[in-house]
Amino acid sequence: MAKVKNNQSDERELGFGSKNYSESVRFLRPDGQVNVKRSGMGWLNNTDIFHSLISASISKLILLIISSYILINLIFAGVYYAVGVENFGGIEIEDSSELNKYLALFFFSAQTITTLGYGHIYPIGNAASIAAAVESLLGLLSFAIATGILYGRFSRPKSDIIYSKNILISPYKDGAALMFRVSNKKQYELIESEANVLISMSDPHTNKRAFLNLKLEIAKVNFLAMSWTIVHAINEESPLFGLKKDDLILRDAEIIILIKAINDTYSQTVYSRHSYKAHELIEHAKFKALKTEATAEGAVKISVTDIHLFDLLN
Amino acid sequence: MAKVKNNQSDERELGFGSKNYSESVRFLRPDGQVNVKRSGMGWLNNTDIFHSLISASISKLILLIISSYILINLIFAGVYYAVGVENFGGIEIEDSSELNKYLALFFFSAQTITTLGYGHIYPIGNAASIAAAVESLLGLLSFAIATGILYGRFSRPKSDIIYSKNILISPYKDGAALMFRVSNKKQYELIESEANVLISMSDPHTNKRAFLNLKLEIAKVNFLAMSWTIVHAINEESPLFGLKKDDLILRDAEIIILIKAINDTYSQTVYSRHSYKAHELIEHAKFKALKTEATAEGAVKISVTDIHLFDLLN
Amino acid sequence: MAKVKNNQSDERELGFGSKNYSESVRFLRPDGQVNVKRSGMGWLNNTDIFHSLISASISKLILLIISSYILINLIFAGVYYAVGVENFGGIEIEDSSELNKYLALFFFSAQTITTLGYGHIYPIGNAASIAAAVESLLGLLSFAIATGILYGRFSRPKSDIIYSKNILISPYKDGAALMFRVSNKKQYELIESEANVLISMSDPHTNKRAFLNLKLEIAKVNFLAMSWTIVHAINEESPLFGLKKDDLILRDAEIIILIKAINDTYSQTVYSRHSYKAHELIEHAKFKALKTEATAEGAVKISVTDIHLFDLLN
Amino acid sequence: MAKVKNNQSDERELGFGSKNYSESVRFLRPDGQVNVKRSGMGWLNNTDIFHSLISASISKLILLIISSYILINLIFAGVYYAVGVENFGGIEIEDSSELNKYLALFFFSAQTITTLGYGHIYPIGNAASIAAAVESLLGLLSFAIATGILYGRFSRPKSDIIYSKNILISPYKDGAALMFRVSNKKQYELIESEANVLISMSDPHTNKRAFLNLKLEIAKVNFLAMSWTIVHAINEESPLFGLKKDDLILRDAEIIILIKAINDTYSQTVYSRHSYKAHELIEHAKFKALKTEATAEGAVKISVTDIHLFDLLN
Repeated sequence: MAKVKNNQSDERELGFGSKNYSESVRFLRPDGQVNVKRSGMGWLNNTDIFHSLISASISKLILLIISSYILINLIFAGVYYAVGVENFGGIEIEDSSELNKYLALFFFSAQTITTLGYGHIYPIGNAASIAAAVESLLGLLSFAIATGILYGRFSRPKSDIIYSKNILISPYKDGAALMFRVSNKKQYELIESEANVLISMSDPHTNKRAFLNLKLEIAKVNFLAMSWTIVHAINEESPLFGLKKDDLILRDAEIIILIKAINDTYSQTVYSRHSYKAHELIEHAKFKALKTEATAEGAVKISVTDIHLFDLLN
Repeated sequence: MAKVKNNQSDERELGFGSKNYSESVRFLRPDGQVNVKRSGMGWLNNTDIFHSLISASISKLILLIISSYILINLIFAGVYYAVGVENFGGIEIEDSSELNKYLALFFFSAQTITTLGYGHIYPIGNAASIAAAVESLLGLLSFAIATGILYGRFSRPKSDIIYSKNILISPYKDGAALMFRVSNKKQYELIESEANVLISMSDPHTNKRAFLNLKLEIAKVNFLAMSWTIVHAINEESPLFGLKKDDLILRDAEIIILIKAINDTYSQTVYSRHSYKAHELIEHAKFKALKTEATAEGAVKISVTDIHLFDLLN
Repeated sequence: MAKVKNNQSDERELGFGSKNYSESVRFLRPDGQVNVKRSGMGWLNNTDIFHSLISASISKLILLIISSYILINLIFAGVYYAVGVENFGGIEIEDSSELNKYLALFFFSAQTITTLGYGHIYPIGNAASIAAAVESLLGLLSFAIATGILYGRFSRPKSDIIYSKNILISPYKDGAALMFRVSNKKQYELIESEANVLISMSDPHTNKRAFLNLKLEIAKVNFLAMSWTIVHAINEESPLFGLKKDDLILRDAEIIILIKAINDTYSQTVYSRHSYKAHELIEHAKFKALKTEATAEGAVKISVTDIHLFDLLN
Repeated sequence: MAKVKNNQSDERELGFGSKNYSESVRFLRPDGQVNVKRSGMGWLNNTDIFHSLISASISKLILLIISSYILINLIFAGVYYAVGVENFGGIEIEDSSELNKYLALFFFSAQTITTLGYGHIYPIGNAASIAAAVESLLGLLSFAIATGILYGRFSRPKSDIIYSKNILISPYKDGAALMFRVSNKKQYELIESEANVLISMSDPHTNKRAFLNLKLEIAKVNFLAMSWTIVHAINEESPLFGLKKDDLILRDAEIIILIKAINDTYSQTVYSRHSYKAHELIEHAKFKALKTEATAEGAVKISVTDIHLFDLLN
């Protein structure tokens, strides 16, 4: 993670470009996505189809699979119908309506693309046989692609870090510190977790937005076993020194958090991002200690949603 | 691996949270899993289904596959039965009992979901054909998922490091040192192995648990070819200085080991964890040298279980 | 990324070998591929078939799949024909021409290799059955390979970094600087991007080619969210100090860029390479600021092709 | 890669254990495999089946697949035969020998396990149908495993680094240096290549074997585009200072090389190992410069086997 050597770091170091933003913007969406839309190269060049498919919601993906399945079968049924229903054995021709013939070919298509091939309906002539040979190859390849997409979804690195709803200014040593808590929602372990915290603020006079690094007391932990309170001391070196919540709101401040950890089931480095806008800051508050229980087997039990809890101080 | 700069490292640096543990706890289970149960977000949000499936035992997974296969066929047989057995060609209707009809549809379902499709039984009407088309698609997708899970299991990084059963206090230079041995069980190579050793102890007065780093004489080896004896010298800088086994038991001490290595078959970074509780410590003992034999071809033969062997020193 | 400690770095450090190049060469092709052809070990040993398949164009791959499918079916139809058409049930023998018999066996082969197996044609004798059993196994394995190739293509790390068409010499601080811009074409994020810039120049007297490092003002950004202007200050320490565009053309200069970033959808480290030859350099020019618009939802919109735009100065 | 801080590095730092080897041993086989056989935990625990399958030779793997296919079909044909051939439709019973019945069931089994399912033979009773349902599920799962193994083989990181046949002692600066050359056999690129060279020597008096680091002039290159001559200067700091080839043979010296690089097609870190025994050393020799040709398109052509070539000096 790039270490910003001094507090005069300008926006170039973060890669957010070099523009003044007159309106209020949020650089990270609540789900951690960078809030930038890129265009200019045509839809296809700005889109990564595999990326879209493995990050789409599961319901969208199911819908897409089912509708593709129906569509392809409708198309091939049309091809078979154009070839002529008399080129297929096993379909009753005499007493059938055209719709029923088309439907029989639709089901024949479904049996072909899945390589099911009951065979009670079968192609007779060359044209019908060629179409069926093409469809079964297409079926196998589509299925190979589906396997890839499903595996890509499963094996995609996930961090599942949960952030406290608020970021607090709490008493710390002789002064104060910015604090928020993170925990791991899942049962697998996150190890070698490393945090990097930045603040984006507009200068109230020039309206120029700067991105500044916030130094952490401890930037890395070996395990994210229970919870981790990330602390930035607000001392003379801090860009927040002397600023109140209202000042931060005025500056349209956004605290940007990058956490990098290793999911040790897959040995994958995972990345989590989060941001707090100034209105999510609570002054004069302190996080409640996380309740832990020792189970009969000597294990420690926690409830990860407890990381949101804090006490307001006088 | 996070380097702890001084011995005043508190528990936050390890991510084990900030609670006093009044009872005896074991932070790492003997299999290296972190002994923390996380809840608070509902079962689904605290579980990663793919992770559970790729880390389940092989017998559990086989049982799950077989029972799902039977269950899905029971369900689809029910659907086909509801559609009506007369909508299927090839099933004897007249002299069959209802059970036999259901069984015939059960086998038809099995032939459909595997896309086997003998075709001696086949759907006739639209409803039966639609159900079969749905089942064959479901079969292909389930199979795609099974392929992903099986590949995920196979390709999952494994370290297979074996730890000596005991941790010893052995004579070392002019004083003593904490020593344990590790070896690689498998024939593939572990390279660039790196160890990190910590001790978790309760303060006997305040009952507050601290996590302290134990400095190693050599923390990294290029190959884990035979065995590696990991050594922490107990000198004035060591948090163990002046403590006996009984003191460590009183402090509910746990020695936590993190090893990181690269499995060079897959170029995967693998992680291994282990812990020793104070009662697994042997004082005044020394590991036996590992027996190695040179084979006729100039190779070196070892028995990895020999790493457990030690001699008690009078 | 290897840090070149001083400007006396010779070509060995880059791995481009130690030859004088008398002709004009381009070390990186415009697509970023290293412009070296390796031979000497036979075609097979210098080629990685899987690598060729996953990096081939999609149209080439489709052509290859279709032609293999036709070829294998032609071969197996030949085998079946040699076995004898009378060993297959369901083929009309009496009134068929030899071509029609062969075609029927060709379609039977297609139904076998895809494991479709309608069964209106089926093998009778042992020879025919063995050939079909072999073909169906071959079909499954080919399909397994196709699944692997398709997944390999999908999951292959992609960086999709776009480089400004030209590299500029712009006013910078009190002097001048070499500048070019990069952006990310796609909607996924590139994080921890790191650049390394080198120049390859021939000595006009000795004709010996040197590879020199160009020190960057900022070599790493946390996000490649919008655009990143990469800047090399041309001061006394720069190997470009005192050289004009014509001098660079005379020296057959090539500016070689290596960018390393992390695609956070897949947690993959991706590499991008680019080079500018001296004639692509524009003196006395300055990049236009990138137009950004804030959308109604607080997102920032950019057009990535705007990174090419620059203004000529007086 | 572990940096050995001084030349007093003992064998523990390399992980080769702590034994004196009285006979001549070779720690790395010519193919780079570590020459250690591990046992002591039972064959299964010392073997990683997936690892064996993805690293087996292609001919062994094909043989294994074909023989498994035949074996499983022989077994299931036996099961079907035990169930009774009369429970299968489409098999001629009256005039068939027992062998022909068994063969018909063998082919039925092959059609079932591949999910081909022509259906000219089909199960009638419950027992036959259950066996066929089990076999088709088994077929799908075996095929899923085969897909995983084939993909694992394809996508396995490969480095394909070729080493010069000999290691030379060549004149270097005012003294001499140990030199060997490496190149990349394949068309894909290896970037950020990093070398680590060690020597293993027995002390002629104590017979104790030491592993010592050999400092390299340049230990990292950005590209392995053509060839890379790796140089260890034999000066006063070198453990080789004052030793001749005969001394090295007497000490049973082995020069162990570890190269780490990134294959940028797959963004995989790949590892290559090689060793030279003392008899492969050539004194007073110098590598020939690699012949490079510039092609019409400005590319550079090399023959990688030229890295073996050297000239003997007077």
